Amino acid sequence: MNNIKFANPVKILFGKGMIPEINKEIPKNKKVMILYGGGSIKKNGVYDQVKTALFEYHWVEFSGLEANPHYETCTKAVKKIRAEKVDFLLAVGGGSVIDATKFIAAAACYQGDAWDLMIEKAPIDAALPFGTVLTLPATGSEMNMGFVITKAATQEKLAMDSFHTLPQFSVLDPETTFTLPPVQTANGIIDTFVHITEQYLTYNQHALVQDYFAEALLKVLVEEGHKVLQQPHNYDIRANLMWASTWALNNWISQGVVADWATHIIGHELTAFHGIDHGKTLAIVLPGVLKRERTKKADKIIQMGKNVFGITEGTRDELIDKTIDTMEKFFNSLGIQTHLSDYGVDESTISKIALRMKERNWILGENQDIDYTAVAEILHDRI
Amino acid sequence: MNNIKFANPVKILFGKGMIPEINKEIPKNKKVMILYGGGSIKKNGVYDQVKTALFEYHWVEFSGLEANPHYETCTKAVKKIRAEKVDFLLAVGGGSVIDATKFIAAAACYQGDAWDLMIEKAPIDAALPFGTVLTLPATGSEMNMGFVITKAATQEKLAMDSFHTLPQFSVLDPETTFTLPPVQTANGIIDTFVHITEQYLTYNQHALVQDYFAEALLKVLVEEGHKVLQQPHNYDIRANLMWASTWALNNWISQGVVADWATHIIGHELTAFHGIDHGKTLAIVLPGVLKRERTKKADKIIQMGKNVFGITEGTRDELIDKTIDTMEKFFNSLGIQTHLSDYGVDESTISKIALRMKERNWILGENQDIDYTAVAEILHDRI
Repeated sequence: MNNIKFANPVKILFGKGMIPEINKEIPKNKKVMILYGGGSIKKNGVYDQVKTALFEYHWVEFSGLEANPHYETCTKAVKKIRAEKVDFLLAVGGGSVIDATKFIAAAACYQGDAWDLMIEKAPIDAALPFGTVLTLPATGSEMNMGFVITKAATQEKLAMDSFHTLPQFSVLDPETTFTLPPVQTANGIIDTFVHITEQYLTYNQHALVQDYFAEALLKVLVEEGHKVLQQPHNYDIRANLMWASTWALNNWISQGVVADWATHIIGHELTAFHGIDHGKTLAIVLPGVLKRERTKKADKIIQMGKNVFGITEGTRDELIDKTIDTMEKFFNSLGIQTHLSDYGVDESTISKIALRMKERNWILGENQDIDYTAVAEILHDRI
Repeated sequence: MNNIKFANPVKILFGKGMIPEINKEIPKNKKVMILYGGGSIKKNGVYDQVKTALFEYHWVEFSGLEANPHYETCTKAVKKIRAEKVDFLLAVGGGSVIDATKFIAAAACYQGDAWDLMIEKAPIDAALPFGTVLTLPATGSEMNMGFVITKAATQEKLAMDSFHTLPQFSVLDPETTFTLPPVQTANGIIDTFVHITEQYLTYNQHALVQDYFAEALLKVLVEEGHKVLQQPHNYDIRANLMWASTWALNNWISQGVVADWATHIIGHELTAFHGIDHGKTLAIVLPGVLKRERTKKADKIIQMGKNVFGITEGTRDELIDKTIDTMEKFFNSLGIQTHLSDYGVDESTISKIALRMKERNWILGENQDIDYTAVAEILHDRI
């Protein structure tokens, strides 16, 4: 096991009826901005609950944060924050809204062009304090410091993190997820699944707590994922999926181990060029990454097969094949297609992605062995 | 799943060579008191490492904190803190030293008789800030707010907790555990094991993340527990056991579920009256609690048998018997005896414990169905 230097102080308010609790978490003298997306929170009652909880505050709102939130949109929020002298942000929505809020919180404290913060031209030295009300379990953003922002003008999608962009608190009420469209539920499960595999499906690092915690979370996804689309209003199923999603990326299971993240980085490019949902890009890419890295990842793929899917019969090669196949079928069973051709993506996009990897000089994976030619091969295999 | 309102902000510094990091965690203007036990930290080099790390600080020390730390000893430390104007505490040792430090930190900020804080005659409103250097994985005290203190004069052992008694940071270097006596290693594994079962072995609460995390930790204990006494200097084994021990009681796996704690409360009485090691008292009591509660706990005992010990063959009754028996044999395999007669305890002590439960009007267990007569029956069964 590698060394660990870590704390995760985010306060969690989990369960039905917890939205009113934000009233106790935000200092009363703060001027609050509620940030949200396209308005689904107005249909499911979350917006009204938040407004009621903030009845003692001065607040403004900023809506229209899109999926894979745009730098350009965030910049507008920063202008409004400055004009209105807002000093506390409240993200209400899924990972995109929370990620955007993190970037906006940092951008509001930076005087130059905020894209500088994404390309490491400037460090994140400060950010406005913020809380979150999560309505779509997927990204884990509610309990970590990371965020991903897209610059529409250049079709760039980049990730960043800072201790300053850690939420003060996050409200997770499973009832807010009852009315999610099935495709968003499925995308969230796959995003969560791949967060876990990025940290777990590497090589044997003799870190048993981390391994078994990862398998615990994967088992929850497989068991509850098979049920949730039939029982979308079942509180316990929604609660288990929501809690698993937070734990998949609150950065505890990755402490003391080397992680992969190749699938996410390749997936981001598919979203950047084609706008494919993040979860879907991961479902496409992960089987390809595992097939290409099957030798170096063999022990862990076989371990996942046994401990998560109950696959125990066969040679090592057969176990690996069965595990990857079972995993892909699990994604399909959630209604998610797993090939590029299902989304109209062809070789021309693969060339563009490979070229960008080459230009950026990016080498991916826990073994640092996936270069731009390997990325092209992985994607070619997923046509 | 029940609702959750929780944060655990303790910063973890885990791994070899991490003791010097305390230098970055304690503000330089603080006057530090190093608190420790009987001097084992002087033999294994930890004391010297801590002294070196504090070379830029004014510091004093307080030694002689005993196992099951005494209120009377802690009171002496408080006097010295006031005389020396100490404003930061550093616990160096196992759970007893850390628990004592928590009590001392709170007592130093309280003007009356500090036992008031243990019997809830006064609330804990403040405590000195403190960090810990853990040398014996067992109690989880390094990442939680709880502590247990014994009043020698009256043979009382009581538990308390407060948000003010949360460590600022904890250093966990597995190398400091290489030279632990085998019986302390075994006691630590059993203490950890029973922390987990207290939170997990109840009834089906439909909380899958919590269940599977608990099973993950139990599996680590069983796998590594079988190896550690043969390979006491194996870093990975020690690291896995140390990390599992912290997670067993950092209060994340108990969020959203109802816990038991009967075994601990009964065990505390055996220590209070006979001075039996805490871990040993748990190994004695737990099989008795499970046998008495076998009907209400049936689903979870069978689940633990399957997912932790791989027990799958038999009727439900047989599965329960096999699981309890396998668990007790695991404790025995660590060199720990599991009957009261092994420790010279007879019926007269059982009567004293039952009487005290009756006087305190304590009813134990997740179902609130273990009264003083049940406690007597459980202990009688463990003669």
